[in-house]
Amino acid sequence: MNFPKQITICEVGPRDGLQNEKKLLTTEEKIELVEGILAAGVKHIEIGAFVHPKAVPPMADTEKVMQAIGKREGVEFRALITNLKGVERAIVAGVDKVKLTVSASKSHNLSNFNRTPEESVATFEECVKAATQAGLSVSGAISTTFGCPFEGSIPLEQIDTLVNAFRALGIKEISLSDTTGVANPKLVYERCSELIKRYPDVTYHLHFHNTRGMALANIIAGMEAGILHYDGSFAGLGGCPYAPGASGNIATEDIVHMLEEMNICTGIDLDKLLDVARKAQKLVEHTTDSAILRAGKSSELIANKPSGQIKKG
Amino acid sequence: MNFPKQITICEVGPRDGLQNEKKLLTTEEKIELVEGILAAGVKHIEIGAFVHPKAVPPMADTEKVMQAIGKREGVEFRALITNLKGVERAIVAGVDKVKLTVSASKSHNLSNFNRTPEESVATFEECVKAATQAGLSVSGAISTTFGCPFEGSIPLEQIDTLVNAFRALGIKEISLSDTTGVANPKLVYERCSELIKRYPDVTYHLHFHNTRGMALANIIAGMEAGILHYDGSFAGLGGCPYAPGASGNIATEDIVHMLEEMNICTGIDLDKLLDVARKAQKLVEHTTDSAILRAGKSSELIANKPSGQIKKG
Repeated sequence: MNFPKQITICEVGPRDGLQNEKKLLTTEEKIELVEGILAAGVKHIEIGAFVHPKAVPPMADTEKVMQAIGKREGVEFRALITNLKGVERAIVAGVDKVKLTVSASKSHNLSNFNRTPEESVATFEECVKAATQAGLSVSGAISTTFGCPFEGSIPLEQIDTLVNAFRALGIKEISLSDTTGVANPKLVYERCSELIKRYPDVTYHLHFHNTRGMALANIIAGMEAGILHYDGSFAGLGGCPYAPGASGNIATEDIVHMLEEMNICTGIDLDKLLDVARKAQKLVEHTTDSAILRAGKSSELIANKPSGQIKKG
Repeated sequence: MNFPKQITICEVGPRDGLQNEKKLLTTEEKIELVEGILAAGVKHIEIGAFVHPKAVPPMADTEKVMQAIGKREGVEFRALITNLKGVERAIVAGVDKVKLTVSASKSHNLSNFNRTPEESVATFEECVKAATQAGLSVSGAISTTFGCPFEGSIPLEQIDTLVNAFRALGIKEISLSDTTGVANPKLVYERCSELIKRYPDVTYHLHFHNTRGMALANIIAGMEAGILHYDGSFAGLGGCPYAPGASGNIATEDIVHMLEEMNICTGIDLDKLLDVARKAQKLVEHTTDSAILRAGKSSELIANKPSGQIKKG
């Protein structure tokens, strides 16, 4: 195994983590969380979504959060959008990047957007044009890349078609998302290796849910395939709607902890990140699935032992 | 990545899973669990421990459990022992294999056995002799292989010394145990690769705790290093005494589920294994950390969707 020296983490907690929470956080609470992430040294943040406020009430104040935070040197704020209206709001709010999302599964895309994947893609051109004209970057995301709750396994060619559709629009940064936590390390390794081989001009990002405990194993497989960008959500917020009570997004702190133990640099201060995760867990008023919030860091186990023989390692 | 076609799982739930449970299971309940594991097709079972009943009360009835189950064609029952008295009890009980355990950390071994690792090893010779004369196999286990709560990181040479001590006693099957869940995939890969290179005559087993969420990632790293034998505990029972409330042993069902999704054969019927895990969780009267018990299998998510378009994959 040949692990990379450096990995980039995008914190998606403010968007994917909070979008399905029953308890609505106040704008001030969200700002506090984002400031905490920034203080921890995170340079890529999915700050919210510009979608219909009635469809996703927790995202209704994304403008206010972004405007209160403001642009920051060296930090990229991205937001999820689904149409031109979203781009217009993103421009006003001042985010750096918009993310266009489409599902590799026809049934899943119909269920989420009431459109086929092809119909979704057809609407992207005007979004890309508007965003680019305003100086915003654009990235793409493909959900159900590793399996779909309606259709089961998703043939690679369906992913290939969408990667190409994004490339045709000039989008070269693409998130491959395991929306329902069904990815496994073999599939991740094989699918990502093949996509990198076919389209080396694309920068791939991986987005894993820890629903079946495999997210960190999938990240290992993704790194082996050569992927250097991963999403995480503070405290592991953001569950799979098809598996209530199960784990959500892989916790950012669990990724950073593993990578740090492996001497892989993320540039993130894990202790400060843990402060944010603790705060987020408190704000949503329920426990979440974060191994490090529960168990503490490996190094803490060692440092905290009441022993005279600590050689901290 | 080059994944193996087949992996052997040893179910350690009856021993490592139950040894620290506050609620004492009855002998009949334990027999029911072991029968369930056998029905699921598990061929390697750590059925209990022959240690002082006052030191580990949940293991006091290991003879009774083993005698009720009896020898089974093609199944290996192993038991943990710490001294000659243990071997004698193991012989009477009719187990197939005894496991001798020593910690790579002096402080941890002193804390557990009131002896240095060298003193532990010195007591093993008479155990091996007695077990071998009675026709029992003998395996070794090295705890704190990947880190120690007292000493922090453990130099490879301390593991090397113990592997050699076991080899000198004719023991060629050695479990490397991540007693407190501090192993990470890089360390697992590097340490295991090096040990296999140095001593290819040894069959290594890996024993992971999921305390910091890394157990499945560590198994991926172990497989990449070439290790084909892994321990698991039903329902994820058996915590880390240094991290109360954190995850315990990696759940056998979580391992089998991941491997099955990767088309790696274990010979184990996952549904029957899940029945045992559910039963175990009920018997100990507390929730445990098993991703698949909570979320269900990847294939179930797909099969259970109320949709006419299921293409089960």
